[in-house]
Amino acid sequence: MSDIDEQELARIRNEEAIHDIYADDGSVRADFLAMVGAAIADRDVLFLRQHVARLHESELGDLLETIQPDQRLALVRLLGDDFDLTALTEVDEAIRLEIVEQMPNAQIAAAIGELDSDDAVYILEDLAKEDREEILAQLPFTERVRLRRALDYPESSAGRRMQTEFVAVPPFWTVGQTIDYMREEEELPESFTQIFVIDPTFKLLGIVDLDRILRTKRQVRIESIMRETNYPIPAEMDQEEAAQIFEQYDLLSAAVIDENGRLVGVLTIDDVVDVIQEEAEEDFMRLGGVGDEELSDTALETSRSRVPWLLVNLLTAILAASVISLFEATIEQIVALAVLMPIVAGMGGNAGSQTMTVTVRALATRNLDIHNAWRVVRREASVGLLNGAIFGLLIGLAAGLWFADPNLGGIIATAMLINMLAAALAGIMIPLLLDKVGADPAVSSSVFVTAITDITGFFAFLGLATLWLLQ
Amino acid sequence: MSDIDEQELARIRNEEAIHDIYADDGSVRADFLAMVGAAIADRDVLFLRQHVARLHESELGDLLETIQPDQRLALVRLLGDDFDLTALTEVDEAIRLEIVEQMPNAQIAAAIGELDSDDAVYILEDLAKEDREEILAQLPFTERVRLRRALDYPESSAGRRMQTEFVAVPPFWTVGQTIDYMREEEELPESFTQIFVIDPTFKLLGIVDLDRILRTKRQVRIESIMRETNYPIPAEMDQEEAAQIFEQYDLLSAAVIDENGRLVGVLTIDDVVDVIQEEAEEDFMRLGGVGDEELSDTALETSRSRVPWLLVNLLTAILAASVISLFEATIEQIVALAVLMPIVAGMGGNAGSQTMTVTVRALATRNLDIHNAWRVVRREASVGLLNGAIFGLLIGLAAGLWFADPNLGGIIATAMLINMLAAALAGIMIPLLLDKVGADPAVSSSVFVTAITDITGFFAFLGLATLWLLQ
Repeated sequence: MSDIDEQELARIRNEEAIHDIYADDGSVRADFLAMVGAAIADRDVLFLRQHVARLHESELGDLLETIQPDQRLALVRLLGDDFDLTALTEVDEAIRLEIVEQMPNAQIAAAIGELDSDDAVYILEDLAKEDREEILAQLPFTERVRLRRALDYPESSAGRRMQTEFVAVPPFWTVGQTIDYMREEEELPESFTQIFVIDPTFKLLGIVDLDRILRTKRQVRIESIMRETNYPIPAEMDQEEAAQIFEQYDLLSAAVIDENGRLVGVLTIDDVVDVIQEEAEEDFMRLGGVGDEELSDTALETSRSRVPWLLVNLLTAILAASVISLFEATIEQIVALAVLMPIVAGMGGNAGSQTMTVTVRALATRNLDIHNAWRVVRREASVGLLNGAIFGLLIGLAAGLWFADPNLGGIIATAMLINMLAAALAGIMIPLLLDKVGADPAVSSSVFVTAITDITGFFAFLGLATLWLLQ
Repeated sequence: MSDIDEQELARIRNEEAIHDIYADDGSVRADFLAMVGAAIADRDVLFLRQHVARLHESELGDLLETIQPDQRLALVRLLGDDFDLTALTEVDEAIRLEIVEQMPNAQIAAAIGELDSDDAVYILEDLAKEDREEILAQLPFTERVRLRRALDYPESSAGRRMQTEFVAVPPFWTVGQTIDYMREEEELPESFTQIFVIDPTFKLLGIVDLDRILRTKRQVRIESIMRETNYPIPAEMDQEEAAQIFEQYDLLSAAVIDENGRLVGVLTIDDVVDVIQEEAEEDFMRLGGVGDEELSDTALETSRSRVPWLLVNLLTAILAASVISLFEATIEQIVALAVLMPIVAGMGGNAGSQTMTVTVRALATRNLDIHNAWRVVRREASVGLLNGAIFGLLIGLAAGLWFADPNLGGIIATAMLINMLAAALAGIMIPLLLDKVGADPAVSSSVFVTAITDITGFFAFLGLATLWLLQ
């Protein structure tokens, strides 16, 4: 590093604060990374406290994901109690575990106490059971009970994602009493947008949004301004289903209730946004034949997770090859068939994947159901015929000219039409059937669709050619 | 319809309200559809008012999407002023236009007046210019100005999605004054979670969350509890970029400012959730080679939108075929090559699409950037070599046994290894390059990746076989 660089770094490092840590393309600024790296190497705790500890949790998360793996633990250690554990909810699971496993349980316990319960659960749920118990044992009683209760709910349930801190008042309080309570109470959640109305057994009676309270005169009773909670979320409900309710009804937060209708927590839109993102990501990844891998996974982990899907595809590819082998004699006579046959199969695969993509997405967003399935099947069949005719004509002309053989053009045109229709039908029927039998159409549709378009493509093209030779 | 059904329907139709219009699979209940259909046929306005008008806007939207096209307009007409125009923000564009174009402009104007400005803009922006002007002319002055201003911002900008109703107070007010103002003011937004602090020129000074106001004593001045707005959204900003800010900083709402820093509106998380959904959907659809088609599009529209992608794929398929044609002489000697070659190309395509899926997703979520690109490229290359070795060995053994020819097994094994490595490199380098030059990697990656895996697969396999024959 040259002198000028060092001087420049020193100058920037003495600034009040670095305001935007991101470059224009959304990645973390290289100069900021260099400064942080230098500060870690110099064990410059002052700089790290001033410029790193004050970052927003998601910025700190991005920083942790971007710096060198060996710098991560050093940074966390240097920050000590100034390290905001919430940042760990923003990083890949592998990085989270790597950091948490190296932190002393006592330090985690101290930091967990500062977190909202939903963030605390997010970090605790991935830990080994013994570590989790040791950390919980060091927490104050109420908090321990609250976190245990959330951790008792099934993985990916609303109960796991909920926040157990909330404001609840009895229905007979007035607006004035409620405001006075909030002015005096120390133990309120860090932020909230509504308060809950409960009876003495914690049974949920209604909800009042904060703006409603602010618009209402002091002497008005809460029960007269509360609204019914149309969409209380059972704690056992899967987080995806809860997210769908949030989306459908534009909720900002929702009461989470136990099996007796008692209020146990509140689910907020920021957690739901994360769930929506995860779901969309999962569907996207599954359709491409990859599981829930992360960018920080090693080559070995990545390879292992991708092998099963490739293996299934190998089997269907061999199946398709065995269809070709039925026609070896025909290919021996006309080698042009071997040249052209991948076009028929490939175009079918592309058309099938178009239909399948639309179908899988429409099923995921619940836009496709029994009421319109038949209409969409008919439409896709028409599209298949139409595009089959267009591309049949195109490839028929091209192949006829290429091999100076109009018969070959006619054969490939017919095969293309047949395969595009098969692709359209497979592209919609297979996801629909998989969904019907309870399988995830995003995971397995493409294997079946490709198998059908390959087999149909080879069979139609080589079969028609064989019939023609027999004439 | 049998007598019993009619009696049953009559009984249900007289119930107070139908509580859940959805069946377990998330589709609209068939019996509810039957009832609505019967009520439309009977022009039973009373039933429709009681059971349909009271639906949540998103439920009414689902109902409109599910009933027969000819029932839609009839339903809207029968409901008259009881039809909640907000439901139109929840349906496909084609259905929205179909309904709005048939409604008299005067009725739309009356209904638009009742909507939040963001919903009003959402409906107005798709209309023909003359209709829009006619409707705007019938609105009260302030509202007309507000909507015009939002409509003046570019399509898909934050200014289009923002709500122009908000609560703003001067910094020198006390908490007490602010609460009194909210208790007396009639013209407050329907719901809000924060209030804005502005100077006399509407320049944004800060934000106060409602829970902060409720916790604070009456005599405290607003300026002492307001927080800086770290993330004000310029009205011209693209809605995607705004959504990313919401996600990153877990915002519930954000101030939208004009080029002079003046507060012009507020963007809320419910609109942002819709944007996030749309974005995820777009990436998903693009990777599958389909544009922004909708389930309600006709076969002709669908065909037209899918042809370009298929056409590009046809060209690359012909390119790959021309590679095969270089080796016609070799294939004539060993027809088994024609049987096996699609396996090599196809497996490369699958492996390439796995890598590409991960890369496109990581680019979209900004997890992949210059800081880790090189590491991920190295990882993918290792995965390609590893999986290439595994599947090369498998297919080598299988092909060697199938055709009783160990040399053929060795050739296909080597070709598979080469193609899997090429697939890995293409799967990551192509999206990275497309992103670098400013193209959308989701749209065009798969065409290039498939072209490379096809060409490499055919060339490596047939080329190696030719070399072996020449020995």
